[in-house]
Amino acid sequence: ETSGARETAGGGITLGQNNYGKSGIRLFKVRRDAARHEIWDLDVRVALEGDFEAAYVEGDNTGLLATDTMRNTVYALAKDHLTGSIEEFGLVLVEHFLEAGPTVTSLWVEITQSLWDRIGVDGRPHEHSFVRGRGERRARVSGDEGGGRRVEAGIGDVYVLKTTASGWEGFFRERFTTLPETDDRILATVVTARWEYNTAHADFDRLWRGVMDRTLTTFTDHYSPSAQNTLYRMGKAVLEAFPEVERIWYSLPNVHHIPYDLERFGIQNGGEIFHATRDPYGQIEGWVERRG
Amino acid sequence: ETSGARETAGGGITLGQNNYGKSGIRLFKVRRDAARHEIWDLDVRVALEGDFEAAYVEGDNTGLLATDTMRNTVYALAKDHLTGSIEEFGLVLVEHFLEAGPTVTSLWVEITQSLWDRIGVDGRPHEHSFVRGRGERRARVSGDEGGGRRVEAGIGDVYVLKTTASGWEGFFRERFTTLPETDDRILATVVTARWEYNTAHADFDRLWRGVMDRTLTTFTDHYSPSAQNTLYRMGKAVLEAFPEVERIWYSLPNVHHIPYDLERFGIQNGGEIFHATRDPYGQIEGWVERRG
Amino acid sequence: ETSGARETAGGGITLGQNNYGKSGIRLFKVRRDAARHEIWDLDVRVALEGDFEAAYVEGDNTGLLATDTMRNTVYALAKDHLTGSIEEFGLVLVEHFLEAGPTVTSLWVEITQSLWDRIGVDGRPHEHSFVRGRGERRARVSGDEGGGRRVEAGIGDVYVLKTTASGWEGFFRERFTTLPETDDRILATVVTARWEYNTAHADFDRLWRGVMDRTLTTFTDHYSPSAQNTLYRMGKAVLEAFPEVERIWYSLPNVHHIPYDLERFGIQNGGEIFHATRDPYGQIEGWVERRG
Amino acid sequence: ETSGARETAGGGITLGQNNYGKSGIRLFKVRRDAARHEIWDLDVRVALEGDFEAAYVEGDNTGLLATDTMRNTVYALAKDHLTGSIEEFGLVLVEHFLEAGPTVTSLWVEITQSLWDRIGVDGRPHEHSFVRGRGERRARVSGDEGGGRRVEAGIGDVYVLKTTASGWEGFFRERFTTLPETDDRILATVVTARWEYNTAHADFDRLWRGVMDRTLTTFTDHYSPSAQNTLYRMGKAVLEAFPEVERIWYSLPNVHHIPYDLERFGIQNGGEIFHATRDPYGQIEGWVERRG
Repeated sequence: ETSGARETAGGGITLGQNNYGKSGIRLFKVRRDAARHEIWDLDVRVALEGDFEAAYVEGDNTGLLATDTMRNTVYALAKDHLTGSIEEFGLVLVEHFLEAGPTVTSLWVEITQSLWDRIGVDGRPHEHSFVRGRGERRARVSGDEGGGRRVEAGIGDVYVLKTTASGWEGFFRERFTTLPETDDRILATVVTARWEYNTAHADFDRLWRGVMDRTLTTFTDHYSPSAQNTLYRMGKAVLEAFPEVERIWYSLPNVHHIPYDLERFGIQNGGEIFHATRDPYGQIEGWVERRG
Repeated sequence: ETSGARETAGGGITLGQNNYGKSGIRLFKVRRDAARHEIWDLDVRVALEGDFEAAYVEGDNTGLLATDTMRNTVYALAKDHLTGSIEEFGLVLVEHFLEAGPTVTSLWVEITQSLWDRIGVDGRPHEHSFVRGRGERRARVSGDEGGGRRVEAGIGDVYVLKTTASGWEGFFRERFTTLPETDDRILATVVTARWEYNTAHADFDRLWRGVMDRTLTTFTDHYSPSAQNTLYRMGKAVLEAFPEVERIWYSLPNVHHIPYDLERFGIQNGGEIFHATRDPYGQIEGWVERRG
Repeated sequence: ETSGARETAGGGITLGQNNYGKSGIRLFKVRRDAARHEIWDLDVRVALEGDFEAAYVEGDNTGLLATDTMRNTVYALAKDHLTGSIEEFGLVLVEHFLEAGPTVTSLWVEITQSLWDRIGVDGRPHEHSFVRGRGERRARVSGDEGGGRRVEAGIGDVYVLKTTASGWEGFFRERFTTLPETDDRILATVVTARWEYNTAHADFDRLWRGVMDRTLTTFTDHYSPSAQNTLYRMGKAVLEAFPEVERIWYSLPNVHHIPYDLERFGIQNGGEIFHATRDPYGQIEGWVERRG
Repeated sequence: ETSGARETAGGGITLGQNNYGKSGIRLFKVRRDAARHEIWDLDVRVALEGDFEAAYVEGDNTGLLATDTMRNTVYALAKDHLTGSIEEFGLVLVEHFLEAGPTVTSLWVEITQSLWDRIGVDGRPHEHSFVRGRGERRARVSGDEGGGRRVEAGIGDVYVLKTTASGWEGFFRERFTTLPETDDRILATVVTARWEYNTAHADFDRLWRGVMDRTLTTFTDHYSPSAQNTLYRMGKAVLEAFPEVERIWYSLPNVHHIPYDLERFGIQNGGEIFHATRDPYGQIEGWVERRG
């Protein structure tokens, strides 16, 4: 019995929560059955959970699917099953690995999709030439033996900035507070978002574009009294527009743009000249969700 | 009442778990009261949790400590309170911010310490000249209004490698398995570790060095049948040596070194010539803990 | 006399070519005199050359402009002089520092401009909200006391890919050659370009957009027998279109996309499934220029 | 004739200086003929120059060595010829490619060596277990058909810092100068160095260690009135110690450590508490050489 074996081996020490798998699987697919090629540029991680104690504690690999096998599998399944959204491909992979790994009880798959635009030639998008766009699309699909499935999606590395309609006033002041209040500052942030769907069957491409659009549009549409309030507004806009989204989390680093002191040189800054700092930065994070 | 206000504003939408604070606070301290200077080179993050709904939902900043204030505070408190381990400094910061933030109910502080060696001149360590060493020391201290405190420590970016006494055999084989078995391979991994202490009062410097030493020594001391087993052995060695460590987690990316096929050129490789890949990589993660 | 001083100090050792200055000056400017704001997001480097031997050899700073002064200057001059292209701003900075530094005889300024798109809201570009675009625009302006000026421009970090109309055939084969020939492969490269203008007075914005457009369009418009030939074609297209460009240099890393062997699993790849490698990569570099 | 072909093809446009080759060749070698293993962890670039116009201009690959062949070659030659310094291995590669490439007239090889320490177990260095150390060792070897060879070596990514015995005084002051003078500051820099040997036959391992040692020791041994002067002193020390070194170049980014203003909180800083900035940074570069 595994548990007895552990006792002998560990003397009160035991294996806790664990997973193993393959990361950095860089899968590129072209669909070339028409003149207009379609591409997917993915970085895939597979992480398995299960009854792996024999391997960890005893060094017995019998029940372990090799991570190299996971790699092969991702490429192999992409041939027939990577035909739409990364969320759907993730669901296929989850289904497969629940069967394939003899000791697997649950797993998750993380996929980061790099986005490409078609190169425009004479105003027309080219059929087989592309230029890497901005930002990342992400998905995380998890599942377990009992049939449970969870689909999450996300946005990474989308840097937005507004040059006005943002301030920071009325905050708490104490001994170490030196920052002046302002009702007109630059608000700049590199958006990371992730959200959970309440379904495993949806038009994930449309939803992802919709969440991106609601996020960007909301960023522009109000006077921002704080990154906190803008975060909440973005989440609320998404939840109101898309019933399939159960909750959404944003991480908004506040990339500070500091007015440069030109007055000492007899020059009026006039809210025009800034130093864009890399650190430190504010970091605002939170979930916006449906009331239970 | 805040909660009614939310209802009006959000229509069934609400703020979930959230935090805000300052990241990337790059604090450098010199203790120069003796000829032999001591230095601390830290990157600090402060993340506050509490009753921030007025800010997120209403745009009312009244109860918010500015993240700029947090930055000032970290530098100010470092003068008197950064005199030993980063764990102890973290505890001071936690104590302070629980008091300073009018709406703060809990928080955590993450500190990454870059490690420096003294430059050796004529075989003697120099008194005020240093060269950046390898790896990172990390701490995460959290606390709440009720007096709860948790101290975690960690290791980052320690790249270790052994050229023999490692293999990968007897694993499960199925349709997509192509990897041959081996009883002599290179095992290479960039160690990330974090562990929880069961006390807030300990010699954290000694313990950190001890965990590092147990980790490195265990890496060398056995034939490794898998990264999984080596992970478990390292954790077990740490828990056996240090009763203050409640549990420990490792993340071990398996940096594959692939024998290069020289035989096609009539050259015997002989286990000497490898391609060191960056991706994909295996990723092995898990907790080793004390039986409850 | 400086040179005698050197002799004494160095005994046959002397200072060679050198420069000093400030790098990483992160300047952000907003023009807000109309409702539609304009922005510049720059990283500036200033590098001075001149008679700095007293400083290097003797430790005499009398003739040195502080690099902190250079930073102040870049922000101060941006207020009135950063109103158009980064090339023109570079020319202003060169002019200024030739005067400002008492021992400066020549200098160069490097500017990297991050590109931003306006966020589209209801199909219309927003007046003060932006999202970071892809790629970098670069300029390098140099000048000397004698009135010489050279303006260079550049492109960075533009990742392009074509899924067909590219091959690699007929190359030299010898003992260590194993690569099969192909007349249909993926060609992917992260374009870096720089080019020299033969004038300091031109519509640099129009020219930069033109070179970018010629580069991308040429990438799409032919069967590529090699990255080498595509490089030459891109350069030729630029030189033919823009007489102001004296010569142009490209660096084209060949980001290999390797067909994944699915046949061993009984699956036809059909040119659809690839592993996108990060290393190694081909690196193709060269100037295309006008015949003297 | 190639040149006529170009005329037809390009109409006054021609190929200028160019090279092509393979970068990111990640070669790892173990010497395991004794119990105590030796390792080399290299990143190799090969860049060929020659008569490549047919390829660039005409798309004729006949005379081109494939970059994939270069990769194979580096691994293959490592088996017998990577037995000592990277400079010597670079010389072997140069020799080989001058022969192997039918149209090659000159080339260079760049090698970056990651440095590993043996893990210490019970005070003894382990025979086959290693931990990645700090800094990089670099070499660049070039050669041409005429028998010319040049060997350069280098240091990368060595971050040094001194907490006193450094100042910045007496510099030129003008309108935009605001920096106060100081005779006690932190001097911190990430050393990049490269130097040329006047011989292709030397004990390159001993010399590299010697240059590193002279660089670090000199950094500690004087009051530094400027990074410029420290650069010169380091170069002079190297040239005086090692006649094989013809000249040496340093790039010293000045990583500013800014005293944090604590006085506004009623706290004396006392030269102890600093903000370590990432940007902007001073950049000091120059050659120190032997008088001709």
